[in-house]
Amino acid sequence: MYAVEVRDHVMIAHSFRGDLFGPAQKLHGATFVIDVAFFREDLSPDGVVVDIGRAHEALKATLAPLNYQNLDELPQFSGLNTTTEFLCKHVFDAMADAARTGRLGPGGEGIVRIKVTISESHVARAWYESAL
Amino acid sequence: MYAVEVRDHVMIAHSFRGDLFGPAQKLHGATFVIDVAFFREDLSPDGVVVDIGRAHEALKATLAPLNYQNLDELPQFSGLNTTTEFLCKHVFDAMADAARTGRLGPGGEGIVRIKVTISESHVARAWYESAL
Amino acid sequence: MYAVEVRDHVMIAHSFRGDLFGPAQKLHGATFVIDVAFFREDLSPDGVVVDIGRAHEALKATLAPLNYQNLDELPQFSGLNTTTEFLCKHVFDAMADAARTGRLGPGGEGIVRIKVTISESHVARAWYESAL
Amino acid sequence: MYAVEVRDHVMIAHSFRGDLFGPAQKLHGATFVIDVAFFREDLSPDGVVVDIGRAHEALKATLAPLNYQNLDELPQFSGLNTTTEFLCKHVFDAMADAARTGRLGPGGEGIVRIKVTISESHVARAWYESAL
Amino acid sequence: MYAVEVRDHVMIAHSFRGDLFGPAQKLHGATFVIDVAFFREDLSPDGVVVDIGRAHEALKATLAPLNYQNLDELPQFSGLNTTTEFLCKHVFDAMADAARTGRLGPGGEGIVRIKVTISESHVARAWYESAL
Amino acid sequence: MYAVEVRDHVMIAHSFRGDLFGPAQKLHGATFVIDVAFFREDLSPDGVVVDIGRAHEALKATLAPLNYQNLDELPQFSGLNTTTEFLCKHVFDAMADAARTGRLGPGGEGIVRIKVTISESHVARAWYESAL
Repeated sequence: MYAVEVRDHVMIAHSFRGDLFGPAQKLHGATFVIDVAFFREDLSPDGVVVDIGRAHEALKATLAPLNYQNLDELPQFSGLNTTTEFLCKHVFDAMADAARTGRLGPGGEGIVRIKVTISESHVARAWYESAL
Repeated sequence: MYAVEVRDHVMIAHSFRGDLFGPAQKLHGATFVIDVAFFREDLSPDGVVVDIGRAHEALKATLAPLNYQNLDELPQFSGLNTTTEFLCKHVFDAMADAARTGRLGPGGEGIVRIKVTISESHVARAWYESAL
Repeated sequence: MYAVEVRDHVMIAHSFRGDLFGPAQKLHGATFVIDVAFFREDLSPDGVVVDIGRAHEALKATLAPLNYQNLDELPQFSGLNTTTEFLCKHVFDAMADAARTGRLGPGGEGIVRIKVTISESHVARAWYESAL
Repeated sequence: MYAVEVRDHVMIAHSFRGDLFGPAQKLHGATFVIDVAFFREDLSPDGVVVDIGRAHEALKATLAPLNYQNLDELPQFSGLNTTTEFLCKHVFDAMADAARTGRLGPGGEGIVRIKVTISESHVARAWYESAL
Repeated sequence: MYAVEVRDHVMIAHSFRGDLFGPAQKLHGATFVIDVAFFREDLSPDGVVVDIGRAHEALKATLAPLNYQNLDELPQFSGLNTTTEFLCKHVFDAMADAARTGRLGPGGEGIVRIKVTISESHVARAWYESAL
Repeated sequence: MYAVEVRDHVMIAHSFRGDLFGPAQKLHGATFVIDVAFFREDLSPDGVVVDIGRAHEALKATLAPLNYQNLDELPQFSGLNTTTEFLCKHVFDAMADAARTGRLGPGGEGIVRIKVTISESHVARAWYESAL
């Protein structure tokens, strides 16, 4: 299995609901460094999984509605805890849609799997990985 | 599949037995930077795999008996080569036990898989990964 | 000149005032990974600049009032833009005070210079450095 | 499953054919930082997946014919796009051959899987992973 | 002294002239990860050294003529060895000009020093630093 | 001022004497990742500070007597605490001697300053920097 992975980041505010979260129940924030990996069983006729430039653009477009936002105020996250692992799945869904609708360019049609990794600090990260 | 991964480190001395190891048969040491990833099929009601703070604490407790030790003198490692890959399994077993006995807090009961990665330098690392 | 540097991090929310900041005028947030370096002209009788363990503890104590906070609501930052470079100076002042008042332990009395570096993402960071 | 991973790098020139590649159709170049992971179901009698020193040597021998080359001029790549993901497979094949022919030393005979990761920048990388 | 540093990268081909360079006399290439740090004695009225967004844009504009190029064919480098340290100075001159001509936006007028660091691999980098 | 920096590592055992060190008074160990930076006011006729290949070789030769050793047993360190910052100076002295005696090759004769940085973990490092 082949994979190509690209990186970008967002800077957001949010808070969590639930005793589990201790001090993180207060409004705080994070820099999320986001890696998205696209998997194909074999390479496209061009010899790629997907064009790295287009993958970067698609990731940037996916992240734009989140960047510099207070996630607590976004309707799509209403009533949800926007934990790092939750956001991995959110980005996964958007990138899977980008693959299915051709926004990743040639090669994207053969993507069979996506993995989204979000690093929240130098000592903690999360990921979500699934077949399409 | 979702994962959350936390990082900590230990500084230890040890030596290896066997011609394979060349100069590493002598007493030397290592900084081991240890990443432990916990996997769940879906998120807990709080929206997490496991609380990152509790995961950090559980990892620190697991590592405490190793930190600042000469592993050659610890009874649990008697007659064994404490290679990086061997220690991945050692930490895996301890973290699996922490998950099974509830020491990871809410979310920990649903952990189905653990991966332990140990970096021994900027050019070498090892890991052990298994279902629980 | 010798230096010893330790690392920790905080996760905060904040916003900026001024057209310069564009979308960062909205409430957003950041993970700040903070490195503090202590400088001495020569080593202490123990052979250190400062004990790394005590340096980590002093840094953690300095950061505790910031961690998981909305910096816009902290009185010490009222009317100020808590930019990455501004916060470098804030941490510098606290660590300089820790050095002067003996909270860094033996070696700390000889510190002549401090540098505070804050990484806000994988592509941007800031620092403040000055003699004591 | 256990794994041990080693790192090395090459600095090469190349160009790509196909509209997909935009400006990368011109002759340019890359530093490729290459991680090769070897997998075994259990550890060898020495307690290793494979000796890290021999793994580094085998990787260096594999990379030597590529280092400081214009890949466009190498006969083995004639008519092919030497993309990052393509080169992952190229290194995979060579390392798989090294494992099968005993060049990884004791432990190498039990390798069941190899993963080759190539980082082309701080924001993009690719990998190829397969059972042997 | 305050500093703000931003990162970007280019992928180029080149060759060197001189026995010193051994195999690097052949046409090869590199990914150069470039960090540019801007220094001010104190912060601007906005509380910044320079706006990080504008600094990123100015760096990207400086690097555009180099990216995806064979540096051996660029007239500005004719007869010169485009070593990593040489390119640090090249980027320094361009960024110093950006500062002097106001292209870094508010704060840029007070920049007194610039440092350009170029990483060519995980084990080698160079830098050039000077007062303006 | 120009600089070129190269990286290598050693894996050693040692212990410290003095209450300051707490648990590190016991025999333990470390992976030390070592960066050595060489400074020149201007570039050599070849356009370099120093050849990166020769710099790597000189660093490897300097580190060989330390690698896979128990530093407590080396006569050159008898009665001394081999702290990270102390070892920075030790490597500095050796690299300064390499520069003065021509072992860094062309360019080495113009080196005016050296900085040695040793990372002992992902959260702590030390350095020593001085003019020659």
